[in-house]
Amino acid sequence: MQLALSDPELISLAAGFTDSESLPVEEVRGLLGRLLRVRRSGRSALQYGSTQGDPELRLETARHLRRLDGGGAPADDYARRMVVTNGSQQLLYITAEALCDTGDIVLVEDPTYFVFLGILQSRGLRARTVRMEPDGLDLSHLRAVLESLKRSGELRRVKMLYLVSYFQNPTGLTTRFEKKRDALRLLRQFERAAGHRIYLLEDAAYRELRFRGRDAQSALAIRTESGRVIYAGTYSKPFATGVRVGFGVLPEPLLTAALRIKGNHDFGTSNLLQQLLARALASGQYERHVARLSRRYGRKAAAMAAALKAHFPRNIDWEMPEGGLYFWARLPTGMRSGPRSGLFRKALDKKVLYVPGELCYADDPARTKPDREMRLSFGSGSEPDIREGIRRLGDALQNAGG
Amino acid sequence: MQLALSDPELISLAAGFTDSESLPVEEVRGLLGRLLRVRRSGRSALQYGSTQGDPELRLETARHLRRLDGGGAPADDYARRMVVTNGSQQLLYITAEALCDTGDIVLVEDPTYFVFLGILQSRGLRARTVRMEPDGLDLSHLRAVLESLKRSGELRRVKMLYLVSYFQNPTGLTTRFEKKRDALRLLRQFERAAGHRIYLLEDAAYRELRFRGRDAQSALAIRTESGRVIYAGTYSKPFATGVRVGFGVLPEPLLTAALRIKGNHDFGTSNLLQQLLARALASGQYERHVARLSRRYGRKAAAMAAALKAHFPRNIDWEMPEGGLYFWARLPTGMRSGPRSGLFRKALDKKVLYVPGELCYADDPARTKPDREMRLSFGSGSEPDIREGIRRLGDALQNAGG
Repeated sequence: MQLALSDPELISLAAGFTDSESLPVEEVRGLLGRLLRVRRSGRSALQYGSTQGDPELRLETARHLRRLDGGGAPADDYARRMVVTNGSQQLLYITAEALCDTGDIVLVEDPTYFVFLGILQSRGLRARTVRMEPDGLDLSHLRAVLESLKRSGELRRVKMLYLVSYFQNPTGLTTRFEKKRDALRLLRQFERAAGHRIYLLEDAAYRELRFRGRDAQSALAIRTESGRVIYAGTYSKPFATGVRVGFGVLPEPLLTAALRIKGNHDFGTSNLLQQLLARALASGQYERHVARLSRRYGRKAAAMAAALKAHFPRNIDWEMPEGGLYFWARLPTGMRSGPRSGLFRKALDKKVLYVPGELCYADDPARTKPDREMRLSFGSGSEPDIREGIRRLGDALQNAGG
Repeated sequence: MQLALSDPELISLAAGFTDSESLPVEEVRGLLGRLLRVRRSGRSALQYGSTQGDPELRLETARHLRRLDGGGAPADDYARRMVVTNGSQQLLYITAEALCDTGDIVLVEDPTYFVFLGILQSRGLRARTVRMEPDGLDLSHLRAVLESLKRSGELRRVKMLYLVSYFQNPTGLTTRFEKKRDALRLLRQFERAAGHRIYLLEDAAYRELRFRGRDAQSALAIRTESGRVIYAGTYSKPFATGVRVGFGVLPEPLLTAALRIKGNHDFGTSNLLQQLLARALASGQYERHVARLSRRYGRKAAAMAAALKAHFPRNIDWEMPEGGLYFWARLPTGMRSGPRSGLFRKALDKKVLYVPGELCYADDPARTKPDREMRLSFGSGSEPDIREGIRRLGDALQNAGG
């Protein structure tokens, strides 16, 4: 496996890396040059900032959220409840640390973002899984899971529902706005039995990478639920992954805990990166870049879809996503895709790599872990590499059998 | 208190901020401009890197450590066992997470870096304190503490000794090299009774900010103890605090755990910042900047020493440090310096702020917490502000009484 990974001929459809050619090198050079040309702004960028984050970046981000949602709370309210983090990943970790004690339960989509499962494991937390439908979270299953936890007396251990709400990693599915609203209503119904609030952690990491259809509002837009919604956003994927800056908007009572934890981790994200992003947003360069980037990913997704049509057997299910970086393909019953499966080995022999779906499923005693899906990323590869990678994988599938 | 802090006339001798005027604005602009001028290096800087950190920065850092220590392990050995972090702060957090379970004990200097105490508290860890002498850690007390923990059956909970080894925060004291060697020997002696390794976490955050005397070798230079030494370093304070990059060198078996944790936190420090520092090191600009910075802090420390001589009552003890950012002043028996003391209030009335020593002491049932010291920073203030701040504090002391 290690050997295969270092093979320059290997085509990886596994990595969640973004497209190198599209990185805003010129823009960043211009922005940083201007920032550092003036002594006053240059010194400010190279000095410590606050643990919470640069006030300008928080305000620009708040305005940006209001633009995306077409409304919401006043910008200064978002800015006050915001913490800037090292990518949205750190916000996920901080939220888990702030909310959960060892043995607590987090509700997650089935499947979900595998690094989040790593966080849960490292903090001794348990996951309970909620099924997905084409338009996102399966609400009747969410209710059934909550009922079952109530019956077993474990509801008091449930602290939050984690939702990758846009072009989910790994399935590419988006949860409809109305479902977020209804999920919050459901969580609220079970709070009395739980004895505490049950939060919704909305991970919107891929939100801006939409290339078809229209943006759905986030749960932040539900003003009456601002005490329950934690929103995790990022500039990493839509702008530059080498500039690791994300953010969270938190309910007031959680903010203090989050800032204390951020203080313990690193007392503040690099001021230089924050001020770079504040200027990218204020100048409109960020928005122009995101528009270009989305068109580019749209072309790459279309290339992957065409290759899948041409090279994958007909009995393999997949759908064209409306954004994000991933296709999710499902093999027929009886076939397996896991890291020890014949298919995975054949794929490596043919020098192509995918993420076995199995890795994206939490341990949950309520069901057996599915093992016949693949996450296929069109993020980092070139269009010819995407076509060739899918061709090789199609070959491997033709020969895989059971 | 909040009111006083927002008063523009307040002089803060409390903040650990560095000197704004000395920040390398020109150098950073030049380095980033060159990095981003070439498409290939620009794209690489704006893309994700590895969780462990940029290989070039790790190698440059390894060479830098060898220069500081005048030897040590081969550079590629250090680079292999290194993880790049968001300031050394993150390395401290990661080490605590990797090594300790709830209820475990960490040995700390008495007093010690207060944010580290925050980390211990947030992870449910206990501190046991070891006294300081003018040349650093009190080894006979370290032995006594270990003996006592052995007798009480708690030695198996002891996982590491945390040592801020250069110009300690808050006391400004440096632990002699020989004492680090002997401390490691002592820890080793108690390992059989503990049932596991007891690590030395050497926090060298202030190491390069020396303005008098000669650098002492770090514990990394003790090649036979490489399985016990965790070294935390940073580029934040010696280069630019707005560029939050630190690093750790870890024993092989800890590295895997540290990388897993770093992966959960943020899967890698900003590549842009790392490549900036790699170039600052490779070009020699880093070293030249540190030399200028140390001279500057030397002048500011001398200004503070002169002001202390002129304005502080004779019964207050303090010593000129050889580096770092802090003086540590001790009031006579009977006087108090804590946040609720008359002195602290008087100081605020006179618009000057210090860090009450009390905050730097861990909870330890073995002694009562001292409450008659002050940490005075010459880091961020101008020389006139330092003089005026000490004059005001001298006034407050003259009128403080008991």
